[in-house]
Amino acid sequence: MPVTQPLITINPLEPIPLVEQIVSGIQQQIAQRVLRTGARLPSIRDFAAQHGVSRFTVVDAYDRLVALGYLLSRRGSGFYVAPVTPLQTAVTDTSYLERADDVLWLLHNTFRDVPEAIRPGCGWLPKDWLDQKVIQKSLNELSRKSGGFLTSYGDVSGYLPLRQLLAQKILGEIGIHAEASQLLITNGASHGLDLIARLMIKAGDVVLVDDPGYYTLFGLLKSMGAQIVGVPRGLHGPDIAQLEQLLHIHKPKLFFTNTVLHNPTGTSTSLAVAHQLLQLAEKYGFYLVEDDIYGDFHPQTAVRLAALDQLNRVIYVSSYSKTISASLRVGFIACQAELARRLLDLKLLTGLTSSEINQRVMYQILVEGRYRKHMEKVRNRLAVKRGQVIQALEQCRLTLYTEPAGGMFVWASLGHGRQAAEIASRATRQNVMLAPGNLFRPYQEPSSWLRFNVAHCEGDKVFELLSTA
Amino acid sequence: MPVTQPLITINPLEPIPLVEQIVSGIQQQIAQRVLRTGARLPSIRDFAAQHGVSRFTVVDAYDRLVALGYLLSRRGSGFYVAPVTPLQTAVTDTSYLERADDVLWLLHNTFRDVPEAIRPGCGWLPKDWLDQKVIQKSLNELSRKSGGFLTSYGDVSGYLPLRQLLAQKILGEIGIHAEASQLLITNGASHGLDLIARLMIKAGDVVLVDDPGYYTLFGLLKSMGAQIVGVPRGLHGPDIAQLEQLLHIHKPKLFFTNTVLHNPTGTSTSLAVAHQLLQLAEKYGFYLVEDDIYGDFHPQTAVRLAALDQLNRVIYVSSYSKTISASLRVGFIACQAELARRLLDLKLLTGLTSSEINQRVMYQILVEGRYRKHMEKVRNRLAVKRGQVIQALEQCRLTLYTEPAGGMFVWASLGHGRQAAEIASRATRQNVMLAPGNLFRPYQEPSSWLRFNVAHCEGDKVFELLSTA
Repeated sequence: MPVTQPLITINPLEPIPLVEQIVSGIQQQIAQRVLRTGARLPSIRDFAAQHGVSRFTVVDAYDRLVALGYLLSRRGSGFYVAPVTPLQTAVTDTSYLERADDVLWLLHNTFRDVPEAIRPGCGWLPKDWLDQKVIQKSLNELSRKSGGFLTSYGDVSGYLPLRQLLAQKILGEIGIHAEASQLLITNGASHGLDLIARLMIKAGDVVLVDDPGYYTLFGLLKSMGAQIVGVPRGLHGPDIAQLEQLLHIHKPKLFFTNTVLHNPTGTSTSLAVAHQLLQLAEKYGFYLVEDDIYGDFHPQTAVRLAALDQLNRVIYVSSYSKTISASLRVGFIACQAELARRLLDLKLLTGLTSSEINQRVMYQILVEGRYRKHMEKVRNRLAVKRGQVIQALEQCRLTLYTEPAGGMFVWASLGHGRQAAEIASRATRQNVMLAPGNLFRPYQEPSSWLRFNVAHCEGDKVFELLSTA
Repeated sequence: MPVTQPLITINPLEPIPLVEQIVSGIQQQIAQRVLRTGARLPSIRDFAAQHGVSRFTVVDAYDRLVALGYLLSRRGSGFYVAPVTPLQTAVTDTSYLERADDVLWLLHNTFRDVPEAIRPGCGWLPKDWLDQKVIQKSLNELSRKSGGFLTSYGDVSGYLPLRQLLAQKILGEIGIHAEASQLLITNGASHGLDLIARLMIKAGDVVLVDDPGYYTLFGLLKSMGAQIVGVPRGLHGPDIAQLEQLLHIHKPKLFFTNTVLHNPTGTSTSLAVAHQLLQLAEKYGFYLVEDDIYGDFHPQTAVRLAALDQLNRVIYVSSYSKTISASLRVGFIACQAELARRLLDLKLLTGLTSSEINQRVMYQILVEGRYRKHMEKVRNRLAVKRGQVIQALEQCRLTLYTEPAGGMFVWASLGHGRQAAEIASRATRQNVMLAPGNLFRPYQEPSSWLRFNVAHCEGDKVFELLSTA
């Protein structure tokens, strides 16, 4: 099937010869894993037509890429991406990084900036939904303060006033009582999840995750050699009956779960399920890592596991990357004091401190009430948009998993037996990036579900595509 | 021996009862590992005298700390710090973190802000030697720019203009030729060292390090279960004869070395030694991780390993934490493209991206020439100060290892058979923080050497202390 979308961007006005532009464009696609090992390239004729260049130019470029080892030419069949070139000198990679290969491919694609693409599958809010002025204002205020914080390493646990504000006020408001000494500032929630996994998991360990769930986490755990086992996600949180069966079989040490406005289903764990989860944690002796990065999108005070057990068996992780700015890289862990100390030790050895400049920006945004105002607006805007998208999806005959109480995600099915991955693959060729359900499953098992980010569903193109699917 | 220095700060004007101030002050000292397991506390009489409180208050506070499990009371002998309380519920820590215990204690002490302490043992420049205005100016400029960079994840490899500047200009100037795709921005050099170690080392591996060398690195490697083996540092770099013997015995995969203005000796690897090092790397099949965080303190263009081998067997790591600001957390790795890609994959899984805000601040500082001007000043100021400190040390009858060509460190010996740790311990009680040589040895082997940071040797107190040693 011919690729209708140009593979790379070629600019005939640039002083660089066209052949070189094609060579480096394709090299980059391979490096970024957009083109993966074994992928077939457009035929010479198609490539020429799609990019408005002559066939001779394409032949030249493909030949050069074969000579450089990037492509393989198979007689009569076309050109394919060659297997990854081994390092010039042998490095024995002792991590389990290759086990996360699928997730890595996804991550590279997720972060790739494709101009004019529509991205209903995106995991974060569009640029114009976040408030750049809020960051600018805080940066400006900070630039007018002098002080050692501008140049020094700062507090190893994180900027104390920020930790105090989080402990005394922000966590208090959702029912979690913690001291500043139980908090550790991290470079986003991912860094927090990594520290926890690194401290507590060794290769071969079984770790429980939500199924469906957060794919970067799956990749992280796989790269550490852990065996991940999915706990089916129900309408009110993890399926307790199935969880208990899994606990019988495996003796997991950790269960990573997204309590509020779960990614991708949009469900929130109910009080009753939370209580049962904690009882099982006690009975089977495991820890719950509660990922709460979407909690502030919830219009009411939703239940957190940590509010029930007060950080005894719950390790609470959050961040401001989804709500305010991913560029600040400010997140945190709250847990038992002794565990916080060990995590701090690990953080120190593996990266010393986090940027106090960024922590102060975040502190200003929180303390001046800018965060609260911004989130109110975002929640209201999401509510309106969510209603519209749900209606449109239903018109396209998709079945909703549930109507989420808040947040940006809606989880909808094409119907039993359908493959969401297939429609996603077709959509990509029309520059619409969908997120099919298989991506959110521990081993990319097939799925009829799709995750829609309502804030990214502008225009009719997405729904036209779905209704003809 | 009575402790003459107050252990904690007590403020009688605060509304918090004195007993509580003492309890929380000591808890904090224990949490921060200033007071370690088994340490003896001042007697009740001494503590009362040192802190200007009544003995009854101290008795009350100590009793409460015993009840809370922080202290043990031994009849007739006094009060001691109790062994670390186990976690409330069993966490099996699967890392090798405990192997880095000594380094962790050191790190916590290093980052502790002791007001009025003199810190000749410090590893970075004093606040007033770094230029806060340079950071403020760039922050201010940035605050007036709007753009997606304020809120989004940014380029996974790091801000492209910064990588291009580093690749095309900054590395070029020291003779290293790299493409932007061979560079990966990290959260400081520590993060870079961690990524490399994590990708390439597994528990049980032998890893070579400089002896003496950078203790945080020792802790990092130990916490991964690696066996570190020290390569003696000579006047012109690693001792090649001894290195070859070690290579015969062990088959190490990596040698982490500080080429220019080595910490702690202040020596720089010569061209001849660099050449031999690289020949050995080829012969024995190991990689060199070149830590170049002090390179810009050198007044001339010093030799880098990466400039000889052009990133074939050298993985180059640097950062701006020592020169401009540790609060920005901007560092980078330059290496083979394929290795850079794997390191990027690992970085993505373990923490997604680095703050583009901070990278842009650093970019502005570099591109506007502010970095160059600042470093000229610092180098000149260090040269003067280094001369003065060297003279003063010689007057105290200390023997210099070498007169360093630049940088903040001077390595000097008390004389054969003397224990630097002893004088350091005495100095601490006078609020002078020295860095005895044993800290810089792989297993804290005894040493008669001390590392002096010339920028922190203000006043006569340090030299008075040394001359009476």
